[in-house]
Amino acid sequence: MDLYEGIRARNRLAAARLISLVENDDASAREVMRRLHQHTGKAHIVGITGATGSGKSTLVSALTKALREHSRTVGIIAIDPTSPFTGGAVLGDRIRMQELATDPGVFIRSMGTRGALGGLAVATNDAVNILDAFGKEVIIVETVGAGQVEVDIVGLAHTSIVVTMPGGGDEIKAMKAGIMEIGDIFVVNKADREGADRAAAEIEMMVEIVKREPAYIPPILRTVATEGLGVDGLCNAIFSHYDYLQEHGLLEEKVRVRIMGELLEIINHRVHLSVTDALEHDPEMLDLMKKLVDTREIDPHSGAAMVIRHLMKRE
Amino acid sequence: MDLYEGIRARNRLAAARLISLVENDDASAREVMRRLHQHTGKAHIVGITGATGSGKSTLVSALTKALREHSRTVGIIAIDPTSPFTGGAVLGDRIRMQELATDPGVFIRSMGTRGALGGLAVATNDAVNILDAFGKEVIIVETVGAGQVEVDIVGLAHTSIVVTMPGGGDEIKAMKAGIMEIGDIFVVNKADREGADRAAAEIEMMVEIVKREPAYIPPILRTVATEGLGVDGLCNAIFSHYDYLQEHGLLEEKVRVRIMGELLEIINHRVHLSVTDALEHDPEMLDLMKKLVDTREIDPHSGAAMVIRHLMKRE
Repeated sequence: MDLYEGIRARNRLAAARLISLVENDDASAREVMRRLHQHTGKAHIVGITGATGSGKSTLVSALTKALREHSRTVGIIAIDPTSPFTGGAVLGDRIRMQELATDPGVFIRSMGTRGALGGLAVATNDAVNILDAFGKEVIIVETVGAGQVEVDIVGLAHTSIVVTMPGGGDEIKAMKAGIMEIGDIFVVNKADREGADRAAAEIEMMVEIVKREPAYIPPILRTVATEGLGVDGLCNAIFSHYDYLQEHGLLEEKVRVRIMGELLEIINHRVHLSVTDALEHDPEMLDLMKKLVDTREIDPHSGAAMVIRHLMKRE
Repeated sequence: MDLYEGIRARNRLAAARLISLVENDDASAREVMRRLHQHTGKAHIVGITGATGSGKSTLVSALTKALREHSRTVGIIAIDPTSPFTGGAVLGDRIRMQELATDPGVFIRSMGTRGALGGLAVATNDAVNILDAFGKEVIIVETVGAGQVEVDIVGLAHTSIVVTMPGGGDEIKAMKAGIMEIGDIFVVNKADREGADRAAAEIEMMVEIVKREPAYIPPILRTVATEGLGVDGLCNAIFSHYDYLQEHGLLEEKVRVRIMGELLEIINHRVHLSVTDALEHDPEMLDLMKKLVDTREIDPHSGAAMVIRHLMKRE
């Protein structure tokens, strides 16, 4: 099957296969990605991160149903951590999502962190671009955790949603720097539980500390995803944020920053691979390692400059 | 003051000043770091990370007192997140640590994530090397959170300690991939609280899943840091782990991996700075951005290759 033609014809198998190829950093994907790029840039990319146990996956399922009712086609990329200890819960989430998978307007894909971390970000961005070229109108990038890598990935979306729940304030506070800064919309899910008011008030307080575009105040919404409550409101908040970006000429900048982030991730990943390969196999670099580690003649900063020069010479 | 001579003479002000210079990526620090490298490689580097609220800072204070009773000199590098929301707690921890700061055998330094993330890891490694050249026998790198960046930094220590507490199991489970893998010693702090047995059992179960050097089983210790209970046991476990590394010829490999990690962090950081600078200011790269973002003639993978070629040509 020609993957380029397949994706342009909205063949789901072609999309699934191409995502597997980019996950495995397969060279044959490169040419297809090159040709697909002209068809990207149309989707609204929505990132969702937040506290563990806040019900992000259920919320994504409910949100997807709401988006379908608004006649939007939806792509979902769920980023799972490698760790074997969350495997069960993640599997459960995936099963719940199977309901949606029978709808031809929805495409769901899980991406693992099993590869290098730089690699995961690269593969996630590639998968977003594939679903964009496929014609999905809204692409949701959902993370299981809320570590730095996830915040970085979700922060590059056009609209970033941060989810918490009653009693989840401590975890939000403990979250990585940048989590409040990336939030365009905040959601208190499981809002039928005690403490929803306090959770919303805590977020409001934290939101006020973070500087923003003067005109924009991120909404703080309440949902009960399991019942579908408040989910249409979230759907509308997502549309409103996109309108806001367009009306204020901010979407262009978001798109630019996103592509710059894509370039940086690809470059980082490539550099990482070349450097580790050279340090482990190249005779000149093995000699450098000896001078760094054993004789201590060369310090890490000078050594790093030597590695860069060496790789440039080799290219 | 000549900073090289100052540090070799164990002048604390010289160490503090040089760490500030490396934090600010000041060029004048480079030459001093180059000369100091020959005096590094003697310290035992101990990393401590784990669940928020598990009392890591109190444990570090108590551990430092125990190490001093064993006549070891101690350097402490505490890595704080930027986030304004934890500022109070961190300040409190720092005040508690002031007690130790009057002991000339102890040197304490906080490092912020305010700079670029790549920059924090680089500056932290530089600070470790400064305290190593200063003559500190044990250098503790303590993180406030347990995100991917912190796990990466702590994972490069010779001995990595993961701290949790009764009821903290969920957070440990939710932690970034790699947290169980890096732990050489596990600590259940606040072990006088209900649930300490369960917490220890949970860790034991998780530890069994992770593959290790056949001979090594990481100990799971219990402490009540506020009372100093179990802290001498932790101190001895740290010494035992170092002996184990030496006896099995593993220390050399840890040292090598650490320096390789240092090189990678420096290179990543430099590449990041050059790439963002070029993409924002270099006319040829601004034109490339247009072709990526506006006309979509060039895809991110091809664009990344062009950026790399361009930077190599420019050097």
